[in-house]
Amino acid sequence: MTGSTPAPFTADDYRARMERAARAAADAGLAGLLVAPGPDLVWLTGYAPPAVTERLTLLVLVPGRDPVLVVPTLEAPDAEKAAGAPALTLRDWTDGTDPYAVASALLDACGRFGVSDNAWAMHLLGVQKALPGTSYASLTEALPMLRAVKDAAELELLAAAGAAADAAFEEIRKLPFGGRRESDVAADLADLLRGSGHSQVDFTIVASGPNGADPHHEAGDRVIRGGDMVVLDFGGLKDGYGSDTSRTVHVGEPGPEERRVHEIVREAQEAGFRAVRPGAACQEVDRAARAVIAEAGYGARFVHRTGHGIGVTTHEPPYMIEGERQPLVPGMCFSVEPGIYLPGRFGVRIEDIVTVTEDGGRRLNDTTRELVLVD
Amino acid sequence: MTGSTPAPFTADDYRARMERAARAAADAGLAGLLVAPGPDLVWLTGYAPPAVTERLTLLVLVPGRDPVLVVPTLEAPDAEKAAGAPALTLRDWTDGTDPYAVASALLDACGRFGVSDNAWAMHLLGVQKALPGTSYASLTEALPMLRAVKDAAELELLAAAGAAADAAFEEIRKLPFGGRRESDVAADLADLLRGSGHSQVDFTIVASGPNGADPHHEAGDRVIRGGDMVVLDFGGLKDGYGSDTSRTVHVGEPGPEERRVHEIVREAQEAGFRAVRPGAACQEVDRAARAVIAEAGYGARFVHRTGHGIGVTTHEPPYMIEGERQPLVPGMCFSVEPGIYLPGRFGVRIEDIVTVTEDGGRRLNDTTRELVLVD
Repeated sequence: MTGSTPAPFTADDYRARMERAARAAADAGLAGLLVAPGPDLVWLTGYAPPAVTERLTLLVLVPGRDPVLVVPTLEAPDAEKAAGAPALTLRDWTDGTDPYAVASALLDACGRFGVSDNAWAMHLLGVQKALPGTSYASLTEALPMLRAVKDAAELELLAAAGAAADAAFEEIRKLPFGGRRESDVAADLADLLRGSGHSQVDFTIVASGPNGADPHHEAGDRVIRGGDMVVLDFGGLKDGYGSDTSRTVHVGEPGPEERRVHEIVREAQEAGFRAVRPGAACQEVDRAARAVIAEAGYGARFVHRTGHGIGVTTHEPPYMIEGERQPLVPGMCFSVEPGIYLPGRFGVRIEDIVTVTEDGGRRLNDTTRELVLVD
Repeated sequence: MTGSTPAPFTADDYRARMERAARAAADAGLAGLLVAPGPDLVWLTGYAPPAVTERLTLLVLVPGRDPVLVVPTLEAPDAEKAAGAPALTLRDWTDGTDPYAVASALLDACGRFGVSDNAWAMHLLGVQKALPGTSYASLTEALPMLRAVKDAAELELLAAAGAAADAAFEEIRKLPFGGRRESDVAADLADLLRGSGHSQVDFTIVASGPNGADPHHEAGDRVIRGGDMVVLDFGGLKDGYGSDTSRTVHVGEPGPEERRVHEIVREAQEAGFRAVRPGAACQEVDRAARAVIAEAGYGARFVHRTGHGIGVTTHEPPYMIEGERQPLVPGMCFSVEPGIYLPGRFGVRIEDIVTVTEDGGRRLNDTTRELVLVD
């Protein structure tokens, strides 16, 4: 998160989030939460260390006690500047001393704790060794919905990030594609995202022709040609909250199969969106989108889940995937992004961020989902 | 590591490294190594996934068996393109299936394994849950010197990265400092690093006046003025290997105390460098540098360790710190970077990358260590 503009929240906002997280931990039967640098720490405290290194930084949240942030001494000045710092006690440790002794002194020696998914294994092992009687669950397993339900201020930030990404798409579609490298178009997309207020660009996928058949192709040296389908998938952080949208464009006039495949994906995306309503399970969104593609005979070519959550990151729980029975709740925000991938030929993906409302869903991306023809 | 040019190694090079790592694991009494995306995986296989996400990617190295890389199905095409892929068996898993079942099927159910430091806690917990009889140690704890001793090809790449960083310093010192923001000078430094062949810029610290007293200050809005000390600390990756150097410059003529503090740090850095020789413990380098600063009365103002290793990252073991008894071995590469930090006033740090030779040390940075005056 280094370098990104922090979200405009106050120490009171962070205090409220930490209290809510500690209560949720207690309700889940946990003795506390251990939160390492990353999105959970940003969301709970507004703090992102200048770099994530092997030096232990760990927020210890124990229900009924004040939150403590364990930090390396030489990063304490950075931590003190975090928006959430007034709601925290800082406890620093110096190079050469044992940081796990500092952290474990704050923990019940026989407790079960939630630990942030991306905490380093070496830090988890360090605490486990200091307190062999403790046990652990990943935050996603223990409290999967901790950050999933956004409040009004967060929704506004996500909507603004979505609108900024949409503005980037409206500009990129006007530019020439044919004859330029994928990496050139990707650089333009990154500039447009920054120009529309993004402080951090996470990805600018430009996958042309056969490259589009690899859902994770980024952008390479391939020169885009007339007749290419081009998958664009781009996003990043604006004011601390994420954008992520995909549109597939075609260079010049498409053939009938390209039109047909694009239309199937468009209908699948629409079906996924229509399945969004409070109380529906996450997997229902996946099933709705997948059913359209399967009925059209391309089931085996939709090789990924339908969506993922978004918030202070561009990729987080909840996941729209078979087996995820978590019910949707108003305020949840996630992508709906079915695709069809034809190896050696082309791919199509259409993606919007959707938020759950009181009676359905609302898209935070609003550019056309019809096949756009570019030069 | 995304976006950085990979180092120019072949599948045979990676095969040899994996075999060496598996042998080292066996010698350390481990049943194998579990390596997640990050520098260990880059070093062992040349592979860095397009993004590090919650989806499990894990290299399983078991002595006497072929290495297996567990990857998400939709990232398999990326993994297949890695330089080390021909030396690996890929085993992919699809969204919705259990990746820990795939990984744990490759492991001795009662073994002790080394796990890369930065593996996600959620993945370690996933494997621990699948195989409750296993136990784990972090790679740095189990095999601290796995990547520490560089071969001739690696040394050449590190020397080239150091020379490129030196070239950036020779240019930046010619530019005006006074009247410009730290962030402007930092942007110039980043451009110069890229211009000298860096594919990835990791940090460009420009810490002027009182900001220099915070060793982890990056670069901010402060306008640099005549009479400021300015700490410059910059580096990144060139052809997959790291640079990291610090010089402290002064805007205009310095006062006697500024000259004196700079000279103490210069002597401390020289003393640290002189302590480098095969068989000396890492902590002796720290002690040698620290003694100079302590004798000059600034012991309490040298608030960090003296150095860290460098290789496929700009920051890794071994650490030059009190308590680290690991003996130096020819081919090890690390920073020697003492500093003095005077809160509210200024800071000084001087840093070279040093490699251990048969009979001492050799610096990979070669710009002047005298106080440079800038405009």
